[in-house]
Amino acid sequence: MRVGVFGGGQLGRMMALAGYPFNLRFSFYDAIHDCPSAPLGDVYGDAAGSAESLQAFLASADVFTYEFENIPTAWVESIARHKPVFPSVRSLAVSQNRLNEKELFDRLGIPAAPWRRVDSEGDLSRAVAELGLPLVIKTVTGGYDGKGQFVVRSAEDASRAWNELGKAAPLLAETFVSFHRELSIVAVRGQDGEVLCYPPAWNVHHQGILSHSVVPAPDIPEARSRQADAYIRAIMNDLQHVGVMTLEMFDTETGLVANETAPRVHNSGHWSIEGAICSQFENHMRAVAGLPLGVTDPIRPSAMINIIGAHPDTAAILAIPETHLHLYGKTERPGRKLGHITVTAPTHQALMERVNVIAGELPNRMAL
Amino acid sequence: MRVGVFGGGQLGRMMALAGYPFNLRFSFYDAIHDCPSAPLGDVYGDAAGSAESLQAFLASADVFTYEFENIPTAWVESIARHKPVFPSVRSLAVSQNRLNEKELFDRLGIPAAPWRRVDSEGDLSRAVAELGLPLVIKTVTGGYDGKGQFVVRSAEDASRAWNELGKAAPLLAETFVSFHRELSIVAVRGQDGEVLCYPPAWNVHHQGILSHSVVPAPDIPEARSRQADAYIRAIMNDLQHVGVMTLEMFDTETGLVANETAPRVHNSGHWSIEGAICSQFENHMRAVAGLPLGVTDPIRPSAMINIIGAHPDTAAILAIPETHLHLYGKTERPGRKLGHITVTAPTHQALMERVNVIAGELPNRMAL
Repeated sequence: MRVGVFGGGQLGRMMALAGYPFNLRFSFYDAIHDCPSAPLGDVYGDAAGSAESLQAFLASADVFTYEFENIPTAWVESIARHKPVFPSVRSLAVSQNRLNEKELFDRLGIPAAPWRRVDSEGDLSRAVAELGLPLVIKTVTGGYDGKGQFVVRSAEDASRAWNELGKAAPLLAETFVSFHRELSIVAVRGQDGEVLCYPPAWNVHHQGILSHSVVPAPDIPEARSRQADAYIRAIMNDLQHVGVMTLEMFDTETGLVANETAPRVHNSGHWSIEGAICSQFENHMRAVAGLPLGVTDPIRPSAMINIIGAHPDTAAILAIPETHLHLYGKTERPGRKLGHITVTAPTHQALMERVNVIAGELPNRMAL
Repeated sequence: MRVGVFGGGQLGRMMALAGYPFNLRFSFYDAIHDCPSAPLGDVYGDAAGSAESLQAFLASADVFTYEFENIPTAWVESIARHKPVFPSVRSLAVSQNRLNEKELFDRLGIPAAPWRRVDSEGDLSRAVAELGLPLVIKTVTGGYDGKGQFVVRSAEDASRAWNELGKAAPLLAETFVSFHRELSIVAVRGQDGEVLCYPPAWNVHHQGILSHSVVPAPDIPEARSRQADAYIRAIMNDLQHVGVMTLEMFDTETGLVANETAPRVHNSGHWSIEGAICSQFENHMRAVAGLPLGVTDPIRPSAMINIIGAHPDTAAILAIPETHLHLYGKTERPGRKLGHITVTAPTHQALMERVNVIAGELPNRMAL
């Protein structure tokens, strides 16, 4: 079976590495032809999504998926008219649009920050009056790693937020959630509707970018873990999602608060390559290929540390016990995700000691 | 770093899948250009080992290794004159020649079946007289999966063995070892001389081909396990071997008896992809690239089951908990290794139950 992946970044690369063992073959749609996935399959595509390039991509595979959600749905639909695409365009449409996502959370009774749609500066003033301050203003589409966001703490901030983001209206205004940590849950749903969840990850950000994840999230009460499981299960079942999905959440005094979904394998699930019995990448490929899902249980406590902007010394990293290095074949650039390190250990304490040693080897500071 | 691999079979394929994550790139030397490794790198080579093809292969990589030992040493030497090859030609020369291997075992004090070199029918008669019957007669070079062997149980057998194998003299005659099971140990040695061993595997053959391996070998006394470790360590250090090496042994009433070495990743080590903290493939790539070795500890009891001659139903296999399927992209042919299945379990008993379920899904009988 040939799998066509929209996007040729590191996620596509790791999908291919997971899919080759059961004889999947890969092609990628990416405007950049020497993208991280390029050594593992043919790359089609251009920045415009030309009909010719989509036609060639369509012919290159039997089933399709995507590794990032910021692709025009029209491109995906042009494929979906002829061949299966997993997850479907519906999952994409929800995660591409924060208003759709908020409506979905509300409809499924999943706790999320109270919100308003903002089409004008007047709407923004009303949102401030009704929801109170602070508020977070976000563009409805696009924006990731903290871009396209504005925290409003005063009436003057509201004006400034509108000046900065108003041209991208409609916007989303939501209550600022006071949380003590961020969690995510990665899950996979098969074509037969089976859903399996990985344990929740504790995610730590640095300058708006995921710095590292620890799995299972330490000290998470069993009931809260089950809650995360129930939320993502409800979303996936509602969307008839096929493949991996991720739900980012805030861990608050009163419980979990949903933040956003990603209809794909996720940075906070990279630990699973070595840390789980079946990785998120293998499971995504199994789902896309219509195969039974693999066990999502963790093998031992694991951490995933992103390599941002500059590469560490490979030998120094691999000399730390139970580390694995995943480089994406990218050139260095400030703020760019160049790779990640997985580290496992017999206990959570031993794990955090190893994470600290890794932190000391990274050229760019991580959040500790 | 670019790695050139002599051979483009499944071992090269799995080396590449293990090496891509730390940014290694691959080329392969194989006369068959649509070999199992082909999707993962460029393939050079022809059946004759022409100077042009070796020159092109030499230019394609920075460091070289091999995935099978039946390549002419002259081809490897032609590369080694210009660029590093790990393991060196010395390891290759020992494993390519059973007489060299026997001499090495003797020199290092590693127990092995008593043996004689046989250049004539007279030598064979003398070997029968001196070593007694039964004797195993083997070609000195070539031969694998039980080919090129003859068991001599009588004087008439000796004549027949000479008639069949004599044209390939010199031959090796060795005492038939009475054993209750076959074991192997896979180990890796780094460029700095560090040696790490995987736990011994229990190997079960069917019609001369490895059927399955169980790791750790059940009920192996700690002292015997340490003995296996000491034997392979002595061999690797003596040869200054860099990379993975495998030692096959007989488990007998009086102790371990060395059978043969393979200077490479080995079928009985495939379980390590999912069953060990760092797989034999990743460790081989780390050694070849001059990087620190990874932890060889097993994660949980594991079995590797070969898929021989005909493919099982992919979905049926993956529906069994904790199974992973590794297909090599080969067409079906009787006796051909088409892929393997790894299965893990929390206990040895649960593991063997899963192995039995897998056996029921294989189109061709496995040894149970």
